[in-house]
Amino acid sequence: MQRILSTDLSTRTGEPVRLAGWVHRRRLLKSVAFLVLRDAAGLAQVVVTEPAARAALAALTEESVVAVAGTVRANPAAPGGVEVVDPTIEALTDPAEAPPFDLYRPRLTAALPTVLDSAYLALRHPRRRAVHEVSAAAVAGFRSALSERRFVEVHTPKIVASATESGANVFGVDYFGRPAYLAQSPQFYKQMLVGVFERVYEVGPVFRAEPHDTVRHLAQYTSLDAELGFIEDHRDVMAMARDAVAGMLGAVAAQAGAALRLLDLALPEVPARIPEIRFPDALELVGAEPDEPDLAPAHERALGEWARREHGSELLFVTAYPMAKRPFYTHPEPGRPGLSRSFDLLFRGVELATGGQRRHRYGDYVAALAERGEHDLAPYAGYLDTFRHGMPPHGGFAIGLERFVARLVGAANVREVTLFPRDLSRLTP
Amino acid sequence: MQRILSTDLSTRTGEPVRLAGWVHRRRLLKSVAFLVLRDAAGLAQVVVTEPAARAALAALTEESVVAVAGTVRANPAAPGGVEVVDPTIEALTDPAEAPPFDLYRPRLTAALPTVLDSAYLALRHPRRRAVHEVSAAAVAGFRSALSERRFVEVHTPKIVASATESGANVFGVDYFGRPAYLAQSPQFYKQMLVGVFERVYEVGPVFRAEPHDTVRHLAQYTSLDAELGFIEDHRDVMAMARDAVAGMLGAVAAQAGAALRLLDLALPEVPARIPEIRFPDALELVGAEPDEPDLAPAHERALGEWARREHGSELLFVTAYPMAKRPFYTHPEPGRPGLSRSFDLLFRGVELATGGQRRHRYGDYVAALAERGEHDLAPYAGYLDTFRHGMPPHGGFAIGLERFVARLVGAANVREVTLFPRDLSRLTP
Repeated sequence: MQRILSTDLSTRTGEPVRLAGWVHRRRLLKSVAFLVLRDAAGLAQVVVTEPAARAALAALTEESVVAVAGTVRANPAAPGGVEVVDPTIEALTDPAEAPPFDLYRPRLTAALPTVLDSAYLALRHPRRRAVHEVSAAAVAGFRSALSERRFVEVHTPKIVASATESGANVFGVDYFGRPAYLAQSPQFYKQMLVGVFERVYEVGPVFRAEPHDTVRHLAQYTSLDAELGFIEDHRDVMAMARDAVAGMLGAVAAQAGAALRLLDLALPEVPARIPEIRFPDALELVGAEPDEPDLAPAHERALGEWARREHGSELLFVTAYPMAKRPFYTHPEPGRPGLSRSFDLLFRGVELATGGQRRHRYGDYVAALAERGEHDLAPYAGYLDTFRHGMPPHGGFAIGLERFVARLVGAANVREVTLFPRDLSRLTP
Repeated sequence: MQRILSTDLSTRTGEPVRLAGWVHRRRLLKSVAFLVLRDAAGLAQVVVTEPAARAALAALTEESVVAVAGTVRANPAAPGGVEVVDPTIEALTDPAEAPPFDLYRPRLTAALPTVLDSAYLALRHPRRRAVHEVSAAAVAGFRSALSERRFVEVHTPKIVASATESGANVFGVDYFGRPAYLAQSPQFYKQMLVGVFERVYEVGPVFRAEPHDTVRHLAQYTSLDAELGFIEDHRDVMAMARDAVAGMLGAVAAQAGAALRLLDLALPEVPARIPEIRFPDALELVGAEPDEPDLAPAHERALGEWARREHGSELLFVTAYPMAKRPFYTHPEPGRPGLSRSFDLLFRGVELATGGQRRHRYGDYVAALAERGEHDLAPYAGYLDTFRHGMPPHGGFAIGLERFVARLVGAANVREVTLFPRDLSRLTP
């Protein structure tokens, strides 16, 4: 008999069915026993009364993999309104050893290091799994929003000859005996590819040898990168970032409904136009000194509060960051010395995306690097050469997937929403 | 005025329009001059007669970025049946320096190293660009085929503590002072995640420190990986691989039509059931010794010919490979000592995908590793532990994106279809 999923049971009342999955929980009462079976779709209650089946159930352990054949019966008291009765239970592999934590409790209560050490088990918890269903839907939404807007998906090198963002925080690689590095971002490549496709995006791993152990940094994370040409200025990029985030949240709503219900999550509205504040005004609003070069996390939280209070928005663009704190490829703001055509997008008071217009003239790049004391252009060969050969005004943005998901599901630590996190101390599993 | 794309011109006859793009080619004749403009969608012919515009065009160079305002006129002799007349031409950035090869010729004739050294320019050639539009569509098709079949997309670590496939051919990484490696495949992680989601896929970079310079190997390539649980045997995996390839080709047909026409490509049919041959029979068919442990490239070509001749199929499954040549996680074929429940999928006589059923019992893994002389299980901790805690019968497959595209477009060297290839000698651009 063809296996069906737990969520299909309600359409099969009175029929014989076959389920398969993990023993989520057993309850052996005096006159009756229950098996709660977990599969990819959810949970199913199996009622065991017959002595042979009861003996089979008693011999099983939690997390063992079984197939169950039985008959579907309506029972308003059962989860989902149905249960399986008169079952025969067949083990599909050896009995499972006991996990280091109870997966059947409503929440995983083990400490984070224990959870991460046994991530392959902890992820089986329905709430953990739901987080990653939300994540997968968000990525799908990012891709469709951009594909619909003529962006082409690309795959760029992750092993590079020189650091892309700055000399610090790069992982070294032994490349056939030569020194190389893991790419900190696809920044240079996505700009080069604007010259080819006009609009590109990439979803892929980026690597930061972050020497600090914080709740928001990972040594490897998934970056959602986009870059587009023939723009007027950074506002065209902001409009696209807004559409990408709206696409992500729209896909979460459409494709991860069960996960949202399980996690009891409400999704934020994305305004047609996300409110904006200029960096100098933001400093004033939060009461910081006017010569601060960047926003501290506490400032970002205060701005998030302000946006919700004043604009009813959980999203806020901060624009016109000082050039001093932005990478050399950032386009300056004409007529406003020291300020840039860049932005951060704050989501509930945390930086979610960063972007802006980039320089597009070769001479401007050479001057910008010289201003930062970089006179050796060899590490930028290929990248810089692109701008000798005709590049349109362009810009782009990047969204850190794990930060987005953490903020969306209210996780305090980005590791809680990463399948197998990598950080200063963690290289396994 | 809002910019439109070259492909939209035919719907605007008689109207004023604005185009933007690259100077693909200029032709300055006696009484008239032509500008062929290239944008993301294609080419547009601009007719220049007015002296000021002609002077502007004469001052431009190929690959310069311009905006053109003019009026659309029908002209059956022009490409696409329309052209732009009475133009004003505005440079959007500095004049471009001349590329090392002519991008306006029907084909790029430069030698491959020259092409790869200036990949950021060579990719602008319409035929090169088209290859990557085909590639992007294929990846989109892979994802939708699997998403529709309940697969969840995952992102797994690319920095790992030990080699996944074998001790050889791994790149070493300095991980905060500790030795680590770049992942050769997401194999261990996708198996572990079958225990969570039942069905997973990943599209991402994999790394092989391949010490040989061949036309089919890259140091980094894009792997399309899938793994599924609750299977009967490898045939369920083969059916899914078939559906994934059909989805890839279907998406190429649906989303990359213009690229296919430009490249003059015919897509292969995917039979509802791809023909199969068992490895021992394949050896006999190609006249190899019966104790050969693997198929040589010439054997694969001969099998490809045979499949086309005998079955009218450009795809062929070879099954039951010897265990000796498959990784330790491969499931043996019951009752056929030495043979496995694994397969390769040949596409036009070249290996495109490899896969099979995996072992799912902890004891079987320990025995398999011991048989290969591996008694220290520490490097496999986490992965092996998964099988102590209930894993269903499962299997999966992986498709090398660049090999698939190379075979599809008839490229002799996989580097021709890779944006920025990495190999023994190439680390830039």
